[in-house]
Amino acid sequence: MVKIIEVKESVFKNNDERADKLRDELKQSKTFLLNLMSSPGSGKTTTLLRTCEQLKDKLKIGIMEADIDSSVDAQTMSDAGVKTIQLHTGGMCHLDAEMTRQGIEELGTDDVDLAILENVGNLVCPAEFDTGAIKNVCILSICEGHDKPLKYPLIFETCDALIINKIDVAPYFNFDMDKVREYALMRNPDIKIFPISAITGEGVDTWCNWLEKEVKGFIC
Amino acid sequence: MVKIIEVKESVFKNNDERADKLRDELKQSKTFLLNLMSSPGSGKTTTLLRTCEQLKDKLKIGIMEADIDSSVDAQTMSDAGVKTIQLHTGGMCHLDAEMTRQGIEELGTDDVDLAILENVGNLVCPAEFDTGAIKNVCILSICEGHDKPLKYPLIFETCDALIINKIDVAPYFNFDMDKVREYALMRNPDIKIFPISAITGEGVDTWCNWLEKEVKGFIC
Repeated sequence: MVKIIEVKESVFKNNDERADKLRDELKQSKTFLLNLMSSPGSGKTTTLLRTCEQLKDKLKIGIMEADIDSSVDAQTMSDAGVKTIQLHTGGMCHLDAEMTRQGIEELGTDDVDLAILENVGNLVCPAEFDTGAIKNVCILSICEGHDKPLKYPLIFETCDALIINKIDVAPYFNFDMDKVREYALMRNPDIKIFPISAITGEGVDTWCNWLEKEVKGFIC
Repeated sequence: MVKIIEVKESVFKNNDERADKLRDELKQSKTFLLNLMSSPGSGKTTTLLRTCEQLKDKLKIGIMEADIDSSVDAQTMSDAGVKTIQLHTGGMCHLDAEMTRQGIEELGTDDVDLAILENVGNLVCPAEFDTGAIKNVCILSICEGHDKPLKYPLIFETCDALIINKIDVAPYFNFDMDKVREYALMRNPDIKIFPISAITGEGVDTWCNWLEKEVKGFIC
């Protein structure tokens, strides 16, 4: 049974300060926090499963699954043997730094090198709130179309890396990989781009190598 | 060139009253307002193009494309010869009744039987705000997975109809049509469900027949 935490919306106005404070605490406890954002259905949970498979012998991983009120994904991760807690946002469309801190407190940091927050499936609001994460990553699936960096600028501006998922079904969609790279880099010239298929495993190595290097650089 | 309207977030707290007022005005002017909601990339614009092709000789149609700050979709609709205006929400993740009223005012109602609002791509926040629409419709694409009514309850509770798009690529995804029906009907026993492919046109007739009947019932 996955532990379910009802996280409360912050009453504090100073989210940025609280996010910085959480980052300082994570630095002290040597826990790297990754904030994973995307639209509903882009494959966050399957990507997390593949990532945990690849990194579980190299890093101690803990997962926080944020959902409005279901526990579907947390159960999936927990069934796969990954330390997982469920955060229920009670209708809220995003997590802020205080909600994330409540999650981290429940997850614990003593035996966690890499804490991953699977944010609420939403390409708009989560990008507006600094959660205190060390790195922010967005998943865009082939099915969503290559024009998304034009239409949802902020999330591409705030993310350190962009995973382009479901490349196994690329032949059935009119998706232009060169265009999505151009548009994403236009929003953020420093963004790292990782085309993957979480289903077949293609490209997952390259993504995991980047993440492992980032985590080890932070915790060592 | 598509006309671009910068809609302002409402300062009014009484959104529900304003939505009811807009509905009364639409009844007076015999204009049916459809609020179309979905995740980014589920195929709202392509579905609208097919819908307009089927209904353009039967109804006078006007489109309001709401986007955070791009005009990609409005240009696509306008290029197809459909009366279209662009609403820019200036970062806002949804439209409320006052923002919708500003759009309707610009679109005009004299020669519009069916006004369609393509809401911001977001499965969470738009469902929380009554826009004043006569009917609310959600598009879910095959690629997003059949578990979405479990994870994003409110949008399925508030919608009158659910379009399940991209059925042409169903063979490449692990999507269970029976399960999505079961979950959607669990959220809303009255929801009408229309499986379609906006690309191949399959199922679009049935959806358009329902919509035409609803519009004619309202304006006659």
